[in-house]
Amino acid sequence: MRELILTLAIMISISAYSQNNDSISVLIIGMEKSALERWNNGDPSGFLEISAKDVVYFDPMTEQRLDGLDKLTELYDKARGKIHVDKYDMINPKVQSVDRMAVLTFNLISYVGETGHKWNCTEVYRLDNDNQWRIIQTHWSLTKPDVN
Amino acid sequence: MRELILTLAIMISISAYSQNNDSISVLIIGMEKSALERWNNGDPSGFLEISAKDVVYFDPMTEQRLDGLDKLTELYDKARGKIHVDKYDMINPKVQSVDRMAVLTFNLISYVGETGHKWNCTEVYRLDNDNQWRIIQTHWSLTKPDVN
Repeated sequence: MRELILTLAIMISISAYSQNNDSISVLIIGMEKSALERWNNGDPSGFLEISAKDVVYFDPMTEQRLDGLDKLTELYDKARGKIHVDKYDMINPKVQSVDRMAVLTFNLISYVGETGHKWNCTEVYRLDNDNQWRIIQTHWSLTKPDVN
Repeated sequence: MRELILTLAIMISISAYSQNNDSISVLIIGMEKSALERWNNGDPSGFLEISAKDVVYFDPMTEQRLDGLDKLTELYDKARGKIHVDKYDMINPKVQSVDRMAVLTFNLISYVGETGHKWNCTEVYRLDNDNQWRIIQTHWSLTKPDVN
């Protein structure tokens, strides 16, 4: 009987974890897609609005990690109005989470006309004290770039 | 008086957070350096031993995100004994953490002879139920590669 109760307790806690992780996944992937769709139409503010003050950032054009929302805003403001992506394919988005932090990873193909640009992406979201999930780490890189 | 107590409470909690984050930082950066030093001497097992079963992985030579320790082991086994890095410089390692998850980001220069190879790196560590920190996400990319 004790074993049965233990087994049930474990099953309930696994199920609670899965449900929790599933609902965080849906939320985080939704946030990312909304921001990405604004980005694809020349508006970087979607990402800026959901990034934390202490966000850190990598992309393939930047010499070193950028630290902080001010620096990221400066960078993104240069891109404002200049990007137009016709359609995108977010491949295998996956969220791994604990209560207050979640890692979203995916491959992305951004199509400009018929040309597809392939990306690797890692976003880390944190649930802040005001109960908002915010990006604290962004890492964009090219899938299989030419190696120097 | 109430405000003083509140201010003190906030200061204590910030200090507790900082201490906690500081001690996690020291631990995580130490784990990463130990694994990296083994990698630099041709031994990928340092990373494999501290990676979780559900680890996900990006590098610039891989077409799509790899999912799971088995796939990562297969990839790393091909590199076993083939890598020799003479020295490395881990630049500005930074850890952002909550209780059970921590994000480590840094720039890296790996020197083979006089040639320095520049990397961006994001590692996400999770504190598992057995009280071990393990990598659940690795993202290596080249700093400013030639763009296709």
